[in-house]
Amino acid sequence: MAIQTLTVVKIGGNIVDSASALNDFIKKFSALPSPKILIHGGGKLATRLSEQMGIETTMIDGRRVTDAATLRVVVMVYAGEVNKTITAKLQGEGVNAWGITGADGACIRAVKRVGAEHDYGFVGDIPAQGVNKEALLMLLNNCYTPVIAPISMTSEGQLLNTNADTIAQSVAVAMSEHYDTVLVYMFEKSGVLLDLNDEASCINTITPSYYAELKAQKVIAAGMIPKLDNAFVAINQGVSSVRICKTLENESGTKIKLY
Amino acid sequence: MAIQTLTVVKIGGNIVDSASALNDFIKKFSALPSPKILIHGGGKLATRLSEQMGIETTMIDGRRVTDAATLRVVVMVYAGEVNKTITAKLQGEGVNAWGITGADGACIRAVKRVGAEHDYGFVGDIPAQGVNKEALLMLLNNCYTPVIAPISMTSEGQLLNTNADTIAQSVAVAMSEHYDTVLVYMFEKSGVLLDLNDEASCINTITPSYYAELKAQKVIAAGMIPKLDNAFVAINQGVSSVRICKTLENESGTKIKLY
Repeated sequence: MAIQTLTVVKIGGNIVDSASALNDFIKKFSALPSPKILIHGGGKLATRLSEQMGIETTMIDGRRVTDAATLRVVVMVYAGEVNKTITAKLQGEGVNAWGITGADGACIRAVKRVGAEHDYGFVGDIPAQGVNKEALLMLLNNCYTPVIAPISMTSEGQLLNTNADTIAQSVAVAMSEHYDTVLVYMFEKSGVLLDLNDEASCINTITPSYYAELKAQKVIAAGMIPKLDNAFVAINQGVSSVRICKTLENESGTKIKLY
Repeated sequence: MAIQTLTVVKIGGNIVDSASALNDFIKKFSALPSPKILIHGGGKLATRLSEQMGIETTMIDGRRVTDAATLRVVVMVYAGEVNKTITAKLQGEGVNAWGITGADGACIRAVKRVGAEHDYGFVGDIPAQGVNKEALLMLLNNCYTPVIAPISMTSEGQLLNTNADTIAQSVAVAMSEHYDTVLVYMFEKSGVLLDLNDEASCINTITPSYYAELKAQKVIAAGMIPKLDNAFVAINQGVSSVRICKTLENESGTKIKLY
């Protein structure tokens, strides 16, 4: 039997924060062939809810510091509102979506980040073997489409806020033992741009050597580096292809390739 | 093969609203033999969050009117905070818990309540066949313990606020085709009391004829009637036994029996 293709798509704030962008994305994601997995970030909703609740938001280098009160907020927003809204919308389009966090069936085990330059609080990093392959395969084999919120859990049962790009990469790597896995990072630009102000300057393909060159020339924006690092981890560990793009159309955006 | 016993437990505000009561319950629920299912209500957290967000809470006869803003709140609180906190705590105790709402895998299909005396907004009632047996059996057969939040979904993908007692009854009835099913309603009193001010007046067993008698004598408090009605629906439709009790200990509380 030929190995099946699995599409893993990650969406972030530019889609989650806009009802029209989300509805448009849902329709296009629904049209993708199964099996498929969706991973979502939380966008600005958590910051807005924190404000309403009088909880101060602290960001360091664009990352949210997650104290106990903020963890409560991100669990409500990511695992509650965003995850269930997306799951229900997909169900309405006929996709048999199933929303999960890393706590459900211990799908994504993480370890609390310690010893970093800053204390980010209840933030998790995913170790090798952190993804519970059996749980995800159970859903996929039963024709469900997992919709994953960026919340993970320690083996002691502590919920942790976890970067959605990293979850997407870890899930894609884990699934690549069983599927020909394609990872798609949806992005607010048409791809990785040579000139941030010119959408037409989208790079077609980035290989490791070209990536090193682009970084040395400081052509790539600082915020893009963690995303590209995640992409290279993915293809180095078995994912067939990674794309960073604005639309789901085939061949759009920037492809990350080994050579 | 002998038919397995499945325990379905429903907890409400008196446990969910208290960290110490919840931790105590989690330990006792963890000690129950599998297979088991937990259904939780949301307690007062939704009302508190609504206040913080400046959303007015309207109750009619003790039931929450769920407008769009309130639906957002209950999804965040029930499906997010409460469901994931309980799931993670159970995982920490070694129970392979998996938190779900009715949207996930379309586990619990409901219809929006219309034509009632009052408009309760986004509130769902569960029709016969509303519970997706295959989805719950998939989790149970794979040794997961479902933890169900009181949120259901229409076939069009609209999330709905749904009474947790009713979900517990519907799930227990659906599972009783496959298991010898025991339904336990955890309650703030020791059981159904003959005298509301005397915990020692707990009724041992209620049959349909005795229930009719108690109602005619107006011995049973008004708030107790929907719970007992749910209990009788359950045993009339195949659930082996229903108990209303304060602790998980066997034989405690009030047993609802057919005869």
